[in-house]
Amino acid sequence: MDGYNYLLSLCVILLSTKIFSILSRRAQLPQVVGALMAGLFFGPAVLGAITEHFLGFQFCLHPSPLLSTMAELGVIVIMFTAGMETNIEELQASGKVGFAVALMGVVVPLVMGAGLMYFFDENVTFASAVFVGAVLTATSVSITVEALKELGRMSTKVGNTILAAALIDDILGLICLTLVTGVAGGDVNIALVCVKIVGFFLFVGIAGLAYYRAMVWSDRVQAERNLRRYPVMGFAFCLFMAWAAEVVFGVADIIGAFAAGMIIAMSPKGQYIASKFDTIAYLLLTPIFFANIGLEVTLPKMSYELVAFTAAMVIVSIISKLGGCGLGAMLCGLSRRQSYQIGLGMVCRGEVALIVAGKGMAMNLINEEYLGPIVIMIIVCTIVTPIFLKGAFKGADEAGNTIFEDAFMVADQADEIAEDMFHRRSLLFQQTYGGE
Amino acid sequence: MDGYNYLLSLCVILLSTKIFSILSRRAQLPQVVGALMAGLFFGPAVLGAITEHFLGFQFCLHPSPLLSTMAELGVIVIMFTAGMETNIEELQASGKVGFAVALMGVVVPLVMGAGLMYFFDENVTFASAVFVGAVLTATSVSITVEALKELGRMSTKVGNTILAAALIDDILGLICLTLVTGVAGGDVNIALVCVKIVGFFLFVGIAGLAYYRAMVWSDRVQAERNLRRYPVMGFAFCLFMAWAAEVVFGVADIIGAFAAGMIIAMSPKGQYIASKFDTIAYLLLTPIFFANIGLEVTLPKMSYELVAFTAAMVIVSIISKLGGCGLGAMLCGLSRRQSYQIGLGMVCRGEVALIVAGKGMAMNLINEEYLGPIVIMIIVCTIVTPIFLKGAFKGADEAGNTIFEDAFMVADQADEIAEDMFHRRSLLFQQTYGGE
Repeated sequence: MDGYNYLLSLCVILLSTKIFSILSRRAQLPQVVGALMAGLFFGPAVLGAITEHFLGFQFCLHPSPLLSTMAELGVIVIMFTAGMETNIEELQASGKVGFAVALMGVVVPLVMGAGLMYFFDENVTFASAVFVGAVLTATSVSITVEALKELGRMSTKVGNTILAAALIDDILGLICLTLVTGVAGGDVNIALVCVKIVGFFLFVGIAGLAYYRAMVWSDRVQAERNLRRYPVMGFAFCLFMAWAAEVVFGVADIIGAFAAGMIIAMSPKGQYIASKFDTIAYLLLTPIFFANIGLEVTLPKMSYELVAFTAAMVIVSIISKLGGCGLGAMLCGLSRRQSYQIGLGMVCRGEVALIVAGKGMAMNLINEEYLGPIVIMIIVCTIVTPIFLKGAFKGADEAGNTIFEDAFMVADQADEIAEDMFHRRSLLFQQTYGGE
Repeated sequence: MDGYNYLLSLCVILLSTKIFSILSRRAQLPQVVGALMAGLFFGPAVLGAITEHFLGFQFCLHPSPLLSTMAELGVIVIMFTAGMETNIEELQASGKVGFAVALMGVVVPLVMGAGLMYFFDENVTFASAVFVGAVLTATSVSITVEALKELGRMSTKVGNTILAAALIDDILGLICLTLVTGVAGGDVNIALVCVKIVGFFLFVGIAGLAYYRAMVWSDRVQAERNLRRYPVMGFAFCLFMAWAAEVVFGVADIIGAFAAGMIIAMSPKGQYIASKFDTIAYLLLTPIFFANIGLEVTLPKMSYELVAFTAAMVIVSIISKLGGCGLGAMLCGLSRRQSYQIGLGMVCRGEVALIVAGKGMAMNLINEEYLGPIVIMIIVCTIVTPIFLKGAFKGADEAGNTIFEDAFMVADQADEIAEDMFHRRSLLFQQTYGGE
C-alpha cells in the first residue's frame, strides 16, 4: 500500500503551500515565501527534526524522485509561461543592459567569493578559492519570476532586464564553470562549450521558424473549431526544447522552455495557448516546485567557525550580486531605484550553486563541510529575495498594483461566467432533448 | 543526462496521443481509441518489437515509475471530474438498476469464465476455474467515462446507470475476490472486508459533511476575491479521499476520487472548481494515462492452442459482460437500446483483471501462460468498447450531439474572449502607468 502514499504527500503539499501562502500574504509578504516555508516546515528540516527528537523517527514529508521530477516540470512550466509573457522587442532592448548586469553579476561574486575564502583560510589554493567564488555566480531566476508575476511587474523594463540578465548569466555561468574547471586541471573543452552555446541559439532560431510555419499552416488548413490541440502542441514543443537544451546542447532545460514560450507567444494562437497554463501551474506543478525546494533542505551540524563562515557567505552572496548587478544597471544609465530592483532580482541562487559545489567536491577543490553553508546561503537568498523585492516595488505605484489585481479578477470572473453559461446550456440541452 | 529523457517521453506522448486522436476522429472513431493506440504503437509492443527486430535494440517509449504514477494521477482526475459531473439524485435513482446490472455483470462472467476453463482443460480444479472467472468480473469504467464525456452522454440515464453499476461492481468485485480466495484456502477475512467497505461509506458521509461545512464557512468568512484557493482545496480533498479509500479502507483509489468529486459538486463553489480541471486533464494527465496503458503492453509468444484460448476468452469476456449487464438492465425495465448501451459501457476491463490474475498466479491457481491471453483480452475490450459505444449512441439524436459540441465551443470562445479582455487591460495598464 506504500505505493499510494504519494497521494497523501501531494495532498499535504497542496494544502500546506496554499495555507502558508495565504498566511504570508496576510503578513504582507509575497505568497512565494509562504510556499517555500511550507516545504521547509513539513519536510525533514523542521517537522522531521522535531519528530525525530521526540518520537525517535522522522514523521514528515520526504523528498522523492516523483516529487523532484514533478518539481522540475513545475519550473519548466514557470519559465515557459514567463517566456510566453515576455515581449521580445523589450527583451532585445534590454539586451545591452542585461549583458552589463549579468557580467558584473558574475565577476563581482566570483572575486568576492574567492576573497572570502582567502580571508577564512590563508592556505587555500587559488583554484579552490576561485571555485567557491564560482558557486556564488549563478542566479536562479525562477523564484524572482514568480515573485514579479505576483507583483504584476513581469512585463516592465526592470522585469525584462532581469530576464535578459538571467539568461546571459546562465551562459556566462557555463563559461565560467568551464574556465574554472580548466584552471583546476579538469578535462573540459571550452571551445566545445562555446560551440554548443552558439549551436543552441542557431537551433532556437530554426526550431522557432519551423514551429511558426507549422502553426501558420495549421491555422490556415484547419477548418475544425477544436482549439485544444494548440495548447497540447505548444506544451509538447516546450518539453522538446527543454530536453534539447539540456541533453543536446548542455544549456539549462529552463532556458529551452523559456525560448519555446517566446516562440509560441509570437506565433498564431499564442495568446490562447498562454491562457491555458495558468491552471496547470497553480493547481499542481508550482506548489510542488516550491515545496520541493524546502523538502530537499537538510540542515547539517556545524562548528562555530563554520557558522561564522556561513554568515559571512550569506552576506557576501547577497551584497556581491546586489552590488554587481546594480552597478551594471547604473553604468547603463538606469535610475538608482531600478538598479536596486534589478540587483535584488538577481540575488536568488538555486540548484546550479549546488551543481557547481558538487563538481568542486568531486575535484577535491571544495571541502565537504562547506556544503552546509552553501545550502543555507541558497535558502536565505531564496527567502530573502521575494521579501525585499516586494518592498522595493512598494510605494511608488500602489494604484498600478490594484489595477493589475483588478484585471486578474476580471479575467477570473469572466471565466466563471463563461463556465456558468456553458453549464446552463448543457442543462438546457438536457431538458430539451431528454435524458438520453 | 539520462535524467532528462522523461521530457522527451512526455513530448512524444503528448504529440502522438493528440495526432492519433485527431486521426481516429477523422476515421469516425472515438478519440480515446487513438490515444490508446498511440501508446501501443510507440511502446515496446509495436515500435519496440520492430526496432528490436531490425536494429537489435528497442528504440521506443518505455514504461517508467514516473509515467505510471502520473497515469494513476490521470485516472484519479478523470474519475474526480466524473464525480463532479454526476448528478447525485440521478445516480441514486439509478442505484436499483445499477445494482441489478452490476450483480448480473459479475455473476455471468464468473460462470462463463469458469465454464471456459472447464471447456479448454478438463482437469482443471474448481478453484482454478472460478479464479479465471473472477478475472473477467471487474469492469474498468474510466475508459467508458472518457468515451461518454466525448460523446456528451455522461449525464444521461444510461451514463448514470453505468456509473452506479461500475461503483457497485467494484465492491462486488472485492467481495468476489475475497470469496474466491477464501474458497481456494487463502487467508483473507471476508468479515473484515465487509466491515471496511461499510466503514468507507460512513467515512465518505462524514468527510463529505466536514468538507461541505468548511466550504460554507469559508464562503461566508472570506471577503477576499481570490478564487484560486477553491480548486486547490478541492484537489487536495480529492487526493486525500483517494488515498484514504485505497490505503485505509482497501477500496480502489478512483472510488475515493469519484466520491470527492460528488461531494465537491454539491458544495459551494463546486461549479467553479469543476471548471478548472479540464485543462490539467487534457494538457498533461489524461494523455499520459491512455498512452501508459498501451506502453505497458508486452505481447507474449503463444502456442496455437493458447491463441485459440485467447480468442475464446476475448469473446467470452465481451459477451458475458454485455449479456449479463444488458439482461440486468432489461429486467429492470430499460429499453433494449438502453440495455445494449449499458452492457457495452461495462465491457471494459482494466488493471483489476491483472491484479486478480496476479493473485491467482501467486496462489498457483492460474498458470503463468494465461497472462498473455488476459493481457490481450484487456487490450481488445479497451479498444472495442469506445468504438462500439460510439456506434450505439449514433443515429438516434444527431442533433443533440451537435448542440453539445456547440456548447463546448461557446465556453471555449468565451474563455478566449475573457483572456483577450484580460490581456488588453494589462496592456492598457502598462500604457497608462508606464513601464514600471
